[in-house]
Amino acid sequence: MQIAKVIGTVVGNQKEPSLRGSKFLLVRFVDENGEDISNGYEVAIDAVGAGVSEWVLVSRGSAARQIEGNEKRPSDAAIVAIIDTISVENRLIYSKRDHY
Amino acid sequence: MQIAKVIGTVVGNQKEPSLRGSKFLLVRFVDENGEDISNGYEVAIDAVGAGVSEWVLVSRGSAARQIEGNEKRPSDAAIVAIIDTISVENRLIYSKRDHY
Amino acid sequence: MQIAKVIGTVVGNQKEPSLRGSKFLLVRFVDENGEDISNGYEVAIDAVGAGVSEWVLVSRGSAARQIEGNEKRPSDAAIVAIIDTISVENRLIYSKRDHY
Amino acid sequence: MQIAKVIGTVVGNQKEPSLRGSKFLLVRFVDENGEDISNGYEVAIDAVGAGVSEWVLVSRGSAARQIEGNEKRPSDAAIVAIIDTISVENRLIYSKRDHY
Amino acid sequence: MQIAKVIGTVVGNQKEPSLRGSKFLLVRFVDENGEDISNGYEVAIDAVGAGVSEWVLVSRGSAARQIEGNEKRPSDAAIVAIIDTISVENRLIYSKRDHY
Repeated sequence: MQIAKVIGTVVGNQKEPSLRGSKFLLVRFVDENGEDISNGYEVAIDAVGAGVSEWVLVSRGSAARQIEGNEKRPSDAAIVAIIDTISVENRLIYSKRDHY
Repeated sequence: MQIAKVIGTVVGNQKEPSLRGSKFLLVRFVDENGEDISNGYEVAIDAVGAGVSEWVLVSRGSAARQIEGNEKRPSDAAIVAIIDTISVENRLIYSKRDHY
Repeated sequence: MQIAKVIGTVVGNQKEPSLRGSKFLLVRFVDENGEDISNGYEVAIDAVGAGVSEWVLVSRGSAARQIEGNEKRPSDAAIVAIIDTISVENRLIYSKRDHY
Repeated sequence: MQIAKVIGTVVGNQKEPSLRGSKFLLVRFVDENGEDISNGYEVAIDAVGAGVSEWVLVSRGSAARQIEGNEKRPSDAAIVAIIDTISVENRLIYSKRDHY
Repeated sequence: MQIAKVIGTVVGNQKEPSLRGSKFLLVRFVDENGEDISNGYEVAIDAVGAGVSEWVLVSRGSAARQIEGNEKRPSDAAIVAIIDTISVENRLIYSKRDHY
């Protein structure tokens, strides 16, 4: 999975029928230090109720369909967790609590 | 999914039999600000009736076969939605209405 | 799918048994303007009788196995169509007829 | 598979239900000489009891679900082995013993 | 598939149980002219008895499991052929015979 920040939303009413009811979130990938990766973004289906500015884990590829209700959807990216903390070599590089 | 602009068409009459009847659209990927990504393009099967100059969502990999009629086609990219709006941090970076 | 030019062949007699009888073509990827992409190549199984110098569409990943006879082959790339024309914004950037 | 160093952990309590009980490790990819690859990281599910600072093999894509208990989890990366030695052209470029 | 040179081996005794008995080879990818691609390597399971210094074809993704005995292994890369010759536009850019 990749670490990403939810930065926005994408709306499209004319879509593949199985995608009706899906919420498309725009996420920007960050590196293992929390810095933005240029051109690194994805439009992902939200599986956990994530909101703008939250840090999340994104699964891509066929993994995005291993979610109840998404098994037959033509989606290649899904938000599968909201991140609470990221620790690198005993250093806390992100804590959700500090952001709210 | 990635955000892309439909920029053209690809025609090939000699193709894998299961691809007969498929429409191949040429799409150019854009980043989360709507700027072109160099070398970022795909030839995708259209699942939603998209036209040249429209902004769309493209799914790649096995997701491209999760569309009625495409289950057994050797395609690795599909247009799964026509985008109406893209919002980043409460800023509208794209609105289909403004383009027509 | 990506656009590619067939530029050569790869021969290997010692191979995974299910690949016997497969023809491996070397293809170089081009961008949406027909220019070579550096380091962009693939060794693909030919599903349509393509020849050197022809422009083709290449599917990668599990899509490469959605071809009769290839379902169980350990191949991650296949040529699925020979391109006749590529049009970008009403400009013909490639026509097979002009190349022969 | 790619070679990676375990550098940290990611914790998220609000996640896709099937991921409950999974341990997310942050791994940084290294090249074939053991040097860090910039921006090359993954959050992977641990299948072998790896710890911080160990060198491991990471499988990505659908391979990450070929592990007992992970078959239905929306994960696209897994640690599948702890590396003891890496030898390149008869030169030992990594030995776990030398690190402990 | 990608063209690669076998350059070494990776050994790991603590691994996902289904990987027991697998041989992990370190391969470096080369471009279509036989030149090294920087950072382009993979640790692949050997399906054809390849040895160090041989040139091989590597399949990645789910294709790596389309090999007898590997169907359930969490591997995302496999050596599927040993290359005898590579020809580009009637020029022989590699011949195994010339290397031995």
